Amino acid sequence: MSSYSPEQDDLLKRLRRIEGQVAGISRMVADDRYCIDVLTQVSAATSALQSVSLKLLDAHLAGCVVEAAKQGGPEADVKIKEAQAAIARLVRS
Amino acid sequence: MSSYSPEQDDLLKRLRRIEGQVAGISRMVADDRYCIDVLTQVSAATSALQSVSLKLLDAHLAGCVVEAAKQGGPEADVKIKEAQAAIARLVRS
Amino acid sequence: MSSYSPEQDDLLKRLRRIEGQVAGISRMVADDRYCIDVLTQVSAATSALQSVSLKLLDAHLAGCVVEAAKQGGPEADVKIKEAQAAIARLVRS
Amino acid sequence: MSSYSPEQDDLLKRLRRIEGQVAGISRMVADDRYCIDVLTQVSAATSALQSVSLKLLDAHLAGCVVEAAKQGGPEADVKIKEAQAAIARLVRS
Repeated sequence: MSSYSPEQDDLLKRLRRIEGQVAGISRMVADDRYCIDVLTQVSAATSALQSVSLKLLDAHLAGCVVEAAKQGGPEADVKIKEAQAAIARLVRS
Repeated sequence: MSSYSPEQDDLLKRLRRIEGQVAGISRMVADDRYCIDVLTQVSAATSALQSVSLKLLDAHLAGCVVEAAKQGGPEADVKIKEAQAAIARLVRS
Repeated sequence: MSSYSPEQDDLLKRLRRIEGQVAGISRMVADDRYCIDVLTQVSAATSALQSVSLKLLDAHLAGCVVEAAKQGGPEADVKIKEAQAAIARLVRS
Repeated sequence: MSSYSPEQDDLLKRLRRIEGQVAGISRMVADDRYCIDVLTQVSAATSALQSVSLKLLDAHLAGCVVEAAKQGGPEADVKIKEAQAAIARLVRS
């Protein structure tokens, strides 16, 4: 069971919607639609993906990190370091 | 013809790859894969979408904005304002 | 005269406020203040700096780029490429 | 004692450097320097501030969050929620 299990359905719904958004952007590009209109849709899909990232990170912190911290030991350090690296990737992307 | 016509094929290839990435993330979530591994893939897809945004914006600047600036008049202002709003959305997202 | 001359006073006011914000953050850190409170102030200063970036970029587009596009020639390409590189740095930072 | 105490000196050094960078940007704007050159310095200061944010967040996770998780109870939830909100502000800014 993963840390995001309680939100699995919500995450899958979001991801399928994003997949549809990206397919829609492909059609706009294939149809030579106005660049600013395409950009608006790409920004919307990017924001939606960032929301998925934040949801996953929330679950990781409240689940894996808290669990590992309670048990202590080197595993707690590994989980914290993974979370820190994931946050840095998110902030820099 | 749109400002990104010379890059239409490249954009379509990128968008189809991103669509596949998002479908792959859905499968990872459905399979209850480790949250940090899912996050890494979401970050990769987000970066790929941002590259598409930058390509579209580059085309808009070098195409629509330059063209409108040459012709002058209120249309040039409209194109510049659209570009500024699109950049602000990109930076804030 | 620079493209941002009409907004020079506004930009200087913003930058002095940001300088004060950063000095305030130093005092908070020296006083060992709670990390989340410090983070909130760092986020505020970061947003204020991004607003300065967007203002400068707006001025560059509406000023330098439009001017160069009207005159045409290789200078227009240089200005567009500079703007594109600056936007990419902003989006990626 | 704060979670970032071991890094207090490093943080203060970084913040003073950023304060100097912002003062330098003010001088560039007052001197009407070329907008793209100013933008480059603003991007550098923004990145430096984001590094400070990531350092503070790392300290919060490895310090406050781990400590609270070990003790359990409602305080752990509060620390996690604060971290999540701070991460969301960072990613969205």
